[in-house]
Amino acid sequence: MFGEVREDFTIDQLDSDIVKLLQKDGRLSYTELAEILNTTASTIRNRVQRLTENNFIKVVGVVNPFMTGMPTVAFLGLKIDFHRYDAIVESLEAIPEVRFIAGSSGGYDLFTQVITSTNMNLYKIIREQIGQIDGILSIDTNMLFDIHKQTYDWGAGQGATKE
Amino acid sequence: MFGEVREDFTIDQLDSDIVKLLQKDGRLSYTELAEILNTTASTIRNRVQRLTENNFIKVVGVVNPFMTGMPTVAFLGLKIDFHRYDAIVESLEAIPEVRFIAGSSGGYDLFTQVITSTNMNLYKIIREQIGQIDGILSIDTNMLFDIHKQTYDWGAGQGATKE
Repeated sequence: MFGEVREDFTIDQLDSDIVKLLQKDGRLSYTELAEILNTTASTIRNRVQRLTENNFIKVVGVVNPFMTGMPTVAFLGLKIDFHRYDAIVESLEAIPEVRFIAGSSGGYDLFTQVITSTNMNLYKIIREQIGQIDGILSIDTNMLFDIHKQTYDWGAGQGATKE
Repeated sequence: MFGEVREDFTIDQLDSDIVKLLQKDGRLSYTELAEILNTTASTIRNRVQRLTENNFIKVVGVVNPFMTGMPTVAFLGLKIDFHRYDAIVESLEAIPEVRFIAGSSGGYDLFTQVITSTNMNLYKIIREQIGQIDGILSIDTNMLFDIHKQTYDWGAGQGATKE
C-alpha cells in the first residue's frame, strides 16, 4: 500500500498531532479532530487530504484474521539470490494473499506474511506460486495462531517533523 | 489492539461489504458508504458502530515508519519456556515499542515487532527490557529495511458471514 513519500515532504506540529489521533482512531470526523486540536474542520480536512495524498498516512480498517474466517496466517522468511531481488519482490507483490513484504537482514533476506482461509490454500500458495519464483533459495514457514497485541500509534519521529 | 470478538457475533452481507470498503479506505464517510451500498447513512453509521464496538474491525491510520522518522524496525523471533507464556506476553505487551505480538509455531514460539527511532533504542529495548523477561530462552533479531507491500483488504472469510 505504501507509495513513496517525497523527500521534500515535511509536516508541522498540527500534522503530527492529526497523525497521532488518526493512528488511534481513524474514524474521528474532521469536526471532532478540529475540536480536539482547536482549529477548524476545513483546516483539518485540507491537512488530512495532503497527508494521505502524499502517502504519509493511510487510514484503513484492520480486521483480526483469526476472528473473521481467515485463520491461516503465516510469516514466511525467505532466503534469495540477490541478483533477482527486484523480480522476486514484483512476483510476490502480484500474489493477493501475500499481505506484507519487507526487505530484511538477519536470518532472512525477505520477510512476507500470507493470510488465507485454509491451511490447504497456504500450501498451494507456497508450492504453486511462491515456490515457483526463480531465485528463492529457501522458505521458512512460521504459523501464527493468535495475535496478542497490534498497535499502530507510533507517531512520527523527529526526522519527519520540521517547523 | 484486538479485543475478543464474541463467539455469537455474526455479520451479514451488508456488514461484509462495509468491511471490504473500509479495509481499502477507512476515511470513506457514512454518506459515501451509503451511496456505494445503496442504503442510508444512518444504517451505515449503526453498522460501523456495531462492527467497531464488537472488535470486528478497527479503523486506524497506518504510517510507513521508514518514511516518518521511525526507521528502526525489527522482527524478533522468540523461543520461550511455555510454562511462562502468559506472563511473558503480558510483559511484552507493556513495552510500547513492541507493536505486534503473536503466538507462533515453526522456528519461533512468539513473533514480535519492534518499531523505534534509532538502533541504539532497539538495543536498549532488547537488552534492558525484552531480555530481562523471565522465560525468554532466545531472541533472533531480523532488521527490516524497506516495506514493499502492506495491504489489509483481505475481507472476511466464509466463517464470519452468516445470512
